[in-house]
Amino acid sequence: MTDPDAAGAARALERCDVLASLTSLQGGLERVSFSEEHRAANALVGEWMREAGLRVRQDAAGNICGRLEGQRAGLPALVLGSHLDTVTDAGRYDGMLGVLLAIEVADRLDAAALPFALELIGFTDEEGTRFGNALFGSRAFAGRVGDAWLATPDRTGTTVAQAMTGFGLDPARIGDAARPPDDLVGYLETHIEQGPHLLDADRALGVVTAIAGARRFALQVTGRAGHAGGTPYARRRDAVVAAAEIVLEIERISIESRTIGTVGRIRAFPGGVNVVPGACRFSLDLRAETDEARDTAFDRIDAFAREVCARRGVTWSWDEFYRADATTCDPGLVAAVEAGVRSTGDADPMRVWSRAGHDGMAVSDVTGVAMLFLRCGNDGISHHPDETVTAADTAAALAAFSATVHAVAEQHRA
Amino acid sequence: MTDPDAAGAARALERCDVLASLTSLQGGLERVSFSEEHRAANALVGEWMREAGLRVRQDAAGNICGRLEGQRAGLPALVLGSHLDTVTDAGRYDGMLGVLLAIEVADRLDAAALPFALELIGFTDEEGTRFGNALFGSRAFAGRVGDAWLATPDRTGTTVAQAMTGFGLDPARIGDAARPPDDLVGYLETHIEQGPHLLDADRALGVVTAIAGARRFALQVTGRAGHAGGTPYARRRDAVVAAAEIVLEIERISIESRTIGTVGRIRAFPGGVNVVPGACRFSLDLRAETDEARDTAFDRIDAFAREVCARRGVTWSWDEFYRADATTCDPGLVAAVEAGVRSTGDADPMRVWSRAGHDGMAVSDVTGVAMLFLRCGNDGISHHPDETVTAADTAAALAAFSATVHAVAEQHRA
Repeated sequence: MTDPDAAGAARALERCDVLASLTSLQGGLERVSFSEEHRAANALVGEWMREAGLRVRQDAAGNICGRLEGQRAGLPALVLGSHLDTVTDAGRYDGMLGVLLAIEVADRLDAAALPFALELIGFTDEEGTRFGNALFGSRAFAGRVGDAWLATPDRTGTTVAQAMTGFGLDPARIGDAARPPDDLVGYLETHIEQGPHLLDADRALGVVTAIAGARRFALQVTGRAGHAGGTPYARRRDAVVAAAEIVLEIERISIESRTIGTVGRIRAFPGGVNVVPGACRFSLDLRAETDEARDTAFDRIDAFAREVCARRGVTWSWDEFYRADATTCDPGLVAAVEAGVRSTGDADPMRVWSRAGHDGMAVSDVTGVAMLFLRCGNDGISHHPDETVTAADTAAALAAFSATVHAVAEQHRA
Repeated sequence: MTDPDAAGAARALERCDVLASLTSLQGGLERVSFSEEHRAANALVGEWMREAGLRVRQDAAGNICGRLEGQRAGLPALVLGSHLDTVTDAGRYDGMLGVLLAIEVADRLDAAALPFALELIGFTDEEGTRFGNALFGSRAFAGRVGDAWLATPDRTGTTVAQAMTGFGLDPARIGDAARPPDDLVGYLETHIEQGPHLLDADRALGVVTAIAGARRFALQVTGRAGHAGGTPYARRRDAVVAAAEIVLEIERISIESRTIGTVGRIRAFPGGVNVVPGACRFSLDLRAETDEARDTAFDRIDAFAREVCARRGVTWSWDEFYRADATTCDPGLVAAVEAGVRSTGDADPMRVWSRAGHDGMAVSDVTGVAMLFLRCGNDGISHHPDETVTAADTAAALAAFSATVHAVAEQHRA
């Protein structure tokens, strides 16, 4: 790493601390879309973009955007970005650090030498904390936000459209945030890993090959409630024991098929301590590097559950309430990220797939995407105040991110 | 069965219908202690006892009591009874039918020929519906209600003592309901089975050998919450999968050791669909014919759970919040019930143990107890409006109950 990398990284980390003070949560960090904290964060990040020489605007979705022209004005843009919103009681690096490192890249870059324009973007509402639906800013960027989304209420009943109006935006003009593919060269995002794979492999950086899709299911076993004392085993239609078999099989199938299955919720009904449970509702979150792996795992889980429930005389049902297909990163951009990581002295960059969702999933509808992961400390904890990165890793990420932009430029010249 | 048995059974069943109309629940049956419905039920049952020739009083706990003197006044009493309160949305036979059959027994009996007095009792608050603690009336009968119980509030904050006062009782005199062992010959109760064992065995009646004790536990597995995407299996401390293993082992151990283990509640925390659960709380209700069988089963479950949790790197803990030891029925009284059932033409009476709790558990502190079970229809459903018995079975129960009293008299003469 060079001294400028260390200095840029230090400034980006200081700015993470400043952004962390823009919070609605006493003693912690929460910054949701179309809030006063969102307004303040956009203002501050816009100011930092301006200092780095960018022309700044807030788009129709509340994303904060900056642009540096390349060799000539009006060229398609390579976009660098991430998001500025947070979950509740969040860490201070998830999202923000990627935007701030993009500002450092822009700050040091001789844009006039580039065969494309450079754009920066701080997306709003990647997390979905306020309205439940994630990736609002990046979906708007891809022209994929419709009326139903705008009508979604938060917990207080305020809809996205009303919140936008309160923020000074016109929901009827959400389409203005959409970017035509021809305007774009690609999208690059630096993000903390939000997991321990780099940590466990003793690597500062990782090259992301895919962003996992997820499917989420509400699962239910329906049996028959009965008196705990009066119902002999042969007559029981116990929903919880059937669910327990399924929970264990979800784990077994997931491990065997390199998918990740999580049962985060489970509850018995009616829930009396002396009542054989007549129903058990539980959830399943299923992710894999490819949709095929994920879907095959679910089919196996479903087949097993049907068999268990038939054997136990109970009923199996499920409802899929969320589905995001996996995003394969653009091979050219992946090669550029790999070249960027190699430039930091890592001769054989580690490839990883992202288990978490990112704005790139949405942006990939309009342009190729790739991501650079940065090692997450503290066992890979994220979405938590204990989320951490080191100054040295951040400097390495900045160096690799800059080099990646140069590598993309090389590809364009070739 | 004789015509008088059929007529007595028919009257008892009609009276079940009348009592079912004394309810605080629109369209269903609920009658809790120290309510207006309790007052009305005591008045009515007292009137029926009086018609059968008994001297009637309400005791200091709100139990309705009647007495017929035997060969001479002041002899110790054989007590026949059950309870008059109900659960919420109850059936109309659980408890009440036992009291009403006792009235039929008294009505036809030549008490002056008995070597003991005959007493009848309709206990209050066997179910614990209002205050949470079961067996209030019978515990008071055994002198086991202390100040802490009297201070227990219902959902509206009214304590047992306040409710008693409103009912016209003096809580300070609760001790007056206690009966010295020397005043008692024994306690006999007829009750619907609240289970399908007699139904499955095609028997009208059963001789109860023991009333199961129960132990109830709040179980907890504590792991570590984590991001569903970002936490690889090797790093997971998933509380729900560990709990699932324990739930299945509870079933396995229970079946193997002839105990009944029920997990009626289960819940994951924090409960996010995309969060590896950091804790899982679940309940265990454990019953067996003997305390030893039940306790051995729990020790095995506990040992298994400790092993699973150690293997999975999570923590196991439990809290026992209820314990009632099993009650072994008095051998002499069991023999009398058996003779009673034999008198109905059943040459080899079926012996059963009660999986549910009954007033006899409390009464056994001061005198020997035994029970006669009567077949429950509808798959053995109880604590439910679908609870049912047949007229023929009720007549058989009346015949057997009468004959049981005569058999106890024979034992006393011998």
